[in-house]
Amino acid sequence: MTKIAIIGHGNIGKAVEEAVKAAPDMELTGIYHHNDDLSQIKADVALLCTPTREVPSFAEKMLQLGISTVDSFDIHGQIYDLRQQLTPLARANKAVSIIAAGWDPGSDSVVRTLLQAIAPGGITYTNFGPGRSMGHTVAAKAIHGVKEALSMTIPLGTGIHRRMVYVELEEGADFKTVEKNLLQDDYFAHDETHVIPVPSVASLNNVAHGVHLVRSGVSGTTHNQRFEFNMSINNPALTGQVMVACARAACRLKNESNYGAYTLIEIPPIYLLSGDTENNIRSLV
Amino acid sequence: MTKIAIIGHGNIGKAVEEAVKAAPDMELTGIYHHNDDLSQIKADVALLCTPTREVPSFAEKMLQLGISTVDSFDIHGQIYDLRQQLTPLARANKAVSIIAAGWDPGSDSVVRTLLQAIAPGGITYTNFGPGRSMGHTVAAKAIHGVKEALSMTIPLGTGIHRRMVYVELEEGADFKTVEKNLLQDDYFAHDETHVIPVPSVASLNNVAHGVHLVRSGVSGTTHNQRFEFNMSINNPALTGQVMVACARAACRLKNESNYGAYTLIEIPPIYLLSGDTENNIRSLV
Repeated sequence: MTKIAIIGHGNIGKAVEEAVKAAPDMELTGIYHHNDDLSQIKADVALLCTPTREVPSFAEKMLQLGISTVDSFDIHGQIYDLRQQLTPLARANKAVSIIAAGWDPGSDSVVRTLLQAIAPGGITYTNFGPGRSMGHTVAAKAIHGVKEALSMTIPLGTGIHRRMVYVELEEGADFKTVEKNLLQDDYFAHDETHVIPVPSVASLNNVAHGVHLVRSGVSGTTHNQRFEFNMSINNPALTGQVMVACARAACRLKNESNYGAYTLIEIPPIYLLSGDTENNIRSLV
Repeated sequence: MTKIAIIGHGNIGKAVEEAVKAAPDMELTGIYHHNDDLSQIKADVALLCTPTREVPSFAEKMLQLGISTVDSFDIHGQIYDLRQQLTPLARANKAVSIIAAGWDPGSDSVVRTLLQAIAPGGITYTNFGPGRSMGHTVAAKAIHGVKEALSMTIPLGTGIHRRMVYVELEEGADFKTVEKNLLQDDYFAHDETHVIPVPSVASLNNVAHGVHLVRSGVSGTTHNQRFEFNMSINNPALTGQVMVACARAACRLKNESNYGAYTLIEIPPIYLLSGDTENNIRSLV
């Protein structure tokens, strides 16, 4: 049994807890919060369910203790740098860190990689949603006069998205001013954005999300090779399950002395599965 | 540059040739036919484009020469056994053999593995076609009185398929007898099969194929996670490109001294790509 510690117990932490308990090969040894003393953690792998910006420092702390980590760090432009930052630390402490292990970045990245390999020419469009964007929701909440917000991502095709932003105003706030400031915010200024005042954002809450990923590409010299990957999912549940699958892969890599930091596209997919190699190959290949 | 030899020059061999020539990091050193003297091959990887049943013996010959191999062996029930057969030979000769490297088995296997990892409960249905089935076409041709045949696979959902078998009869052959014998053949006896007499099979030829792969699964304790992967492709072109991507992976594994036989689900997806790791992670993760 792989011993798992969970750090952070929000949406993702709770989903990870469910996925660990459902896994036949894992044992939950503890759930830790932000200010707990982490030096006493007894685990093979720590699953980091903190806000994304806190992931790097928690990963460093765990790796220094020789505990492998998995996170769902989701700032696309900083993933490679995080990998480079954690690699020497993981190696020095004979541990493994799997980063950006959610669904995008994460399982979608594997699909994009596979499609680029089998049709190297061409364009992949990743269309998100409909679903709640964490980053845009946080940005909308930060606008003066906004009490609660929900920013929904609506796919318009070819990787272009509409933002539907539902705002619950603070008492006395002026909607037109809020709308103007929000539309000028860098998070929203580049997309078609609609701001909608509502009496209660809580009643709109829904963790459904999805992706529609398409590629038209060229295999060899043959054009018009068409591929499509669609998901309609509960967002934290999927992220939690991807992280648990990666905890398994982290142990496998560590057992092979392949210490270091990895993104999902650098890991053999079979390492994500429970069960033995023979059965998995016989049933899946 | 990776030096590539192609063995066999039918549909797949020709598509492989195109994909090798289109690859920025590969050099074609020779195309060999069935009866050529293979002991003089100079290559890092031999791409085996022979009929599936001849793959094991050609793989053994190449591995004994220390040349890595890639094949698209497609008899699902025998893939694990072939892996076990080739593993010691590859290891003894410090080579790598990547087997069953087409689209199914192959890239579809990676998608199935990924979906099982991220939603471990549930059922995946792989629906093939519409497209030409090699195995069923060969079986139809073997029926007495059949001059030419084409067996099309039509997806009916939940992994159930209809067979549309177009037959060109030999002079004097009785269609009703041919139809009866064909429907009793083990290849056709278990599926809904329609036999259609045509004046010319050649005029129906089309290498288009496709897949509609669906999974409804459970992540953690959350049901109704829905996934779908669709392709509409030129069959030999895609198979050829997958084999070429795997030639790259074979070299990478060999350089790491990870000798042995592998299926596609055992290989880090990034190994299938040309270009450097940093750029690939930055653009795909």
